[in-house]
Amino acid sequence: MPQNPPTDEAALGSVLARIDADLPAALDRLKALLRIPSISTDPAYREPCARAADWLRADLESLGLKARIDPTPGHPMVVAHGAAGQGPHLLFYGHYDVQPVDPLDLWDRDPFDPEVEETPAGKVIRARGAADDKGQLMTFVEACRAWVAEHGKLPVQVSILFEGEEESGSPSLVPYLKEQADDLRADLAVICDTGMFDTQTPAISTMLRGLLGQEVIITGPVRDLHSGMYGGAAMNPARVLARILADLHDADGRIQVPGFYDDVPEISDELRSQWDALGFDAEGFLGAVGLQHPAGEKGRTALEMLWSRPTCEINGMTSGYTGAGFKTVLPSKASAKISFRLVGQQDPAKLREAFQDFVRARVPDDCKVEFINHSAGPASVMSTDHPAFEAARQALSDEWPQEAAFIGGGGSIPIAGYFKTILGMDSLLIGFGRDDDQIHSPNEKYDLESFHKGIRSWARILAALARA
Amino acid sequence: MPQNPPTDEAALGSVLARIDADLPAALDRLKALLRIPSISTDPAYREPCARAADWLRADLESLGLKARIDPTPGHPMVVAHGAAGQGPHLLFYGHYDVQPVDPLDLWDRDPFDPEVEETPAGKVIRARGAADDKGQLMTFVEACRAWVAEHGKLPVQVSILFEGEEESGSPSLVPYLKEQADDLRADLAVICDTGMFDTQTPAISTMLRGLLGQEVIITGPVRDLHSGMYGGAAMNPARVLARILADLHDADGRIQVPGFYDDVPEISDELRSQWDALGFDAEGFLGAVGLQHPAGEKGRTALEMLWSRPTCEINGMTSGYTGAGFKTVLPSKASAKISFRLVGQQDPAKLREAFQDFVRARVPDDCKVEFINHSAGPASVMSTDHPAFEAARQALSDEWPQEAAFIGGGGSIPIAGYFKTILGMDSLLIGFGRDDDQIHSPNEKYDLESFHKGIRSWARILAALARA
Repeated sequence: MPQNPPTDEAALGSVLARIDADLPAALDRLKALLRIPSISTDPAYREPCARAADWLRADLESLGLKARIDPTPGHPMVVAHGAAGQGPHLLFYGHYDVQPVDPLDLWDRDPFDPEVEETPAGKVIRARGAADDKGQLMTFVEACRAWVAEHGKLPVQVSILFEGEEESGSPSLVPYLKEQADDLRADLAVICDTGMFDTQTPAISTMLRGLLGQEVIITGPVRDLHSGMYGGAAMNPARVLARILADLHDADGRIQVPGFYDDVPEISDELRSQWDALGFDAEGFLGAVGLQHPAGEKGRTALEMLWSRPTCEINGMTSGYTGAGFKTVLPSKASAKISFRLVGQQDPAKLREAFQDFVRARVPDDCKVEFINHSAGPASVMSTDHPAFEAARQALSDEWPQEAAFIGGGGSIPIAGYFKTILGMDSLLIGFGRDDDQIHSPNEKYDLESFHKGIRSWARILAALARA
Repeated sequence: MPQNPPTDEAALGSVLARIDADLPAALDRLKALLRIPSISTDPAYREPCARAADWLRADLESLGLKARIDPTPGHPMVVAHGAAGQGPHLLFYGHYDVQPVDPLDLWDRDPFDPEVEETPAGKVIRARGAADDKGQLMTFVEACRAWVAEHGKLPVQVSILFEGEEESGSPSLVPYLKEQADDLRADLAVICDTGMFDTQTPAISTMLRGLLGQEVIITGPVRDLHSGMYGGAAMNPARVLARILADLHDADGRIQVPGFYDDVPEISDELRSQWDALGFDAEGFLGAVGLQHPAGEKGRTALEMLWSRPTCEINGMTSGYTGAGFKTVLPSKASAKISFRLVGQQDPAKLREAFQDFVRARVPDDCKVEFINHSAGPASVMSTDHPAFEAARQALSDEWPQEAAFIGGGGSIPIAGYFKTILGMDSLLIGFGRDDDQIHSPNEKYDLESFHKGIRSWARILAALARA
């Protein structure tokens, strides 16, 4: 059994100094990865996806990890293992694929020609994937590199999994995790695909909402009718749909699907105090998108609405004539796409049934309803009892101006759920993204500070976990 | 003052006999007119529109009428006057323009190569414009031709106005009517652009609903948001719109805009008896489009819902992502196109205000609302006191198996309103179209029976009006 390296202040100090000195080279490596247009959803980019995977494999091998490419029916997985050591065994996850770049004309530069730019808020590296997720995953890789360079080995046992299909629905992921469960299982998963609470305050995301997506199609008359010839006598499916959608919330913003709140827990007093202490600027958050008033349940703070309360949103709806001008049509069909964000123990399958019953109860005899089931995943609520959570929080607090916070997240990161259900691991979700990174949009960027202090953060966390 | 021709039974009998004998020639004339592709909305068909107008001018002159072409900024008007005679002076209106023909691949034949086809329901003439309105207007012209051929002149004074922009919004009509008011004013307008009650029962449409069209656009956040990152805290404009649309009707199908029913009269007991006697087959009418239950106000018959009650219909709505699959967007905008059919003395301008107030009262602080005003026209309710109405009803009853009825119409015929407001005339709306004529659709047709008995009907009506 090899001996772990020292993890005292002096040992960490030399790693941090090396990270600072090595930053230009680390940036060059990130740029090399960003130049590979690994757009996973577009079959035309199959070769660059494979190239990105191989670039990572080679880079991980240069750290002394045993790395390999595992093919899948889609894009390959990159897997690497460090030499077995003491302390907790981590499985680090990131994804090397990126979103498409259109509309290309809204980019200020070639999305695959990364460059560091000066902005009023500091230096940023601009390219598709800079923040999501190549810049983030490289913060961990560079921290490992510095530890190995300085002390010959990593302070804890590390395995790495890089996926190439995260931006296209991860079709190969679940079968792969099941097949490779024995090889991938570790004590704790570590995921770098989230953000800071704000530019000063690092965060560990311990609660992520689940998602239930449902499409509803109401059909009335067998064909579009003339609203003069039939209007008044023929049932209009848009009217039926509007009633259903309006009934979803009461005047206090509570969702009216029976049983909806059954498995929704209240957050602990301790977590509530932590969240209150964050001083979340609800006014600024909403003001940035032209709004003023939190629109959720009465009596809840905006942070609760975003992190710990379930929601129901209309994501899309359409019926009849929607072009320019006017057409006096009485439509045959009306449809809506609706999604619920889930928290606590809310069960997507049970709620899908409850929602469909809620809809059916409001569809008159003369209409029929069809449902299309979209994604369904429960919330991820991490047990923060594992000492790694507090150790990582302290390490982050040492690096950044403000103390690190356990936060919630409004969106969903399905991989955290799969690690729990398939591999039995909680996930430590730590990332250095900012709200204005424009991920999935033109001109994506990653702050140089996120990259540099992100690498330093991981260096500290690795040491802290070795001691935890 | 020229002497009127005889209008007794014998005189009429010889006219009817001539119509029967002349039917093949009348069909050839109709085909000649149908071959001219007078699509008014498409600038590429400007020349054929002019050609159709000139064909009609020449044909009217061949009847001994003084005919002319009046240019307009759009397509020309055809105007003709008969020699002044005794009895009521009629202004007959029809339109020589037709709807576009696409989708062309759904036609079973060239839409401008008319031919008589055998169908299970009898012979039909199939072509674009066969029913709307070339076939219909030619029933009147052919009746005039038979009177002139048989007796040297028409039994009453007739003026004729053929428009070439009815299918493209009649932009030149109102200015033209105002400018030519003195030349066009008559005792009564006669319009042949409506249908029979059923294949056995001719009809005079005495009530046509008005129309008020309104588009509503609700804006919430300044841009589309991620429903995970913002859902719960940010107001969703689709939710606001759904509430507004759902509030438009109560559970009994009554429209909830304040004051909406103020100027809605009840129909007279006499008219109600007439309508009841029609034995309208509501089940068959709705069954043909896959419905069973009349969807309007509780306690009203289906015919009332269609003819004498106002309506509110959603003609279109859209928000967010409406493509295939799912996108977890919290939309910035939601919009709907809504139309009201108006009856009695309902004032479109007043109701537009009332509706906009109704909407504004339901838009929260954090959203803004914009309105786009579409068409606005009041209902047309004919005063059936003029003896011509009863005389025409009797004449129609003499021709067809069932007694003619005074009926309502769910749609709007704006020209009848203009004749009333600009020229001070009521309109006698008589036509021979059938529900299955497929006007505005591929494979438009006009039954040979509609054409033949339509001509005979006008011959009888002209005699009856001379005696009225």
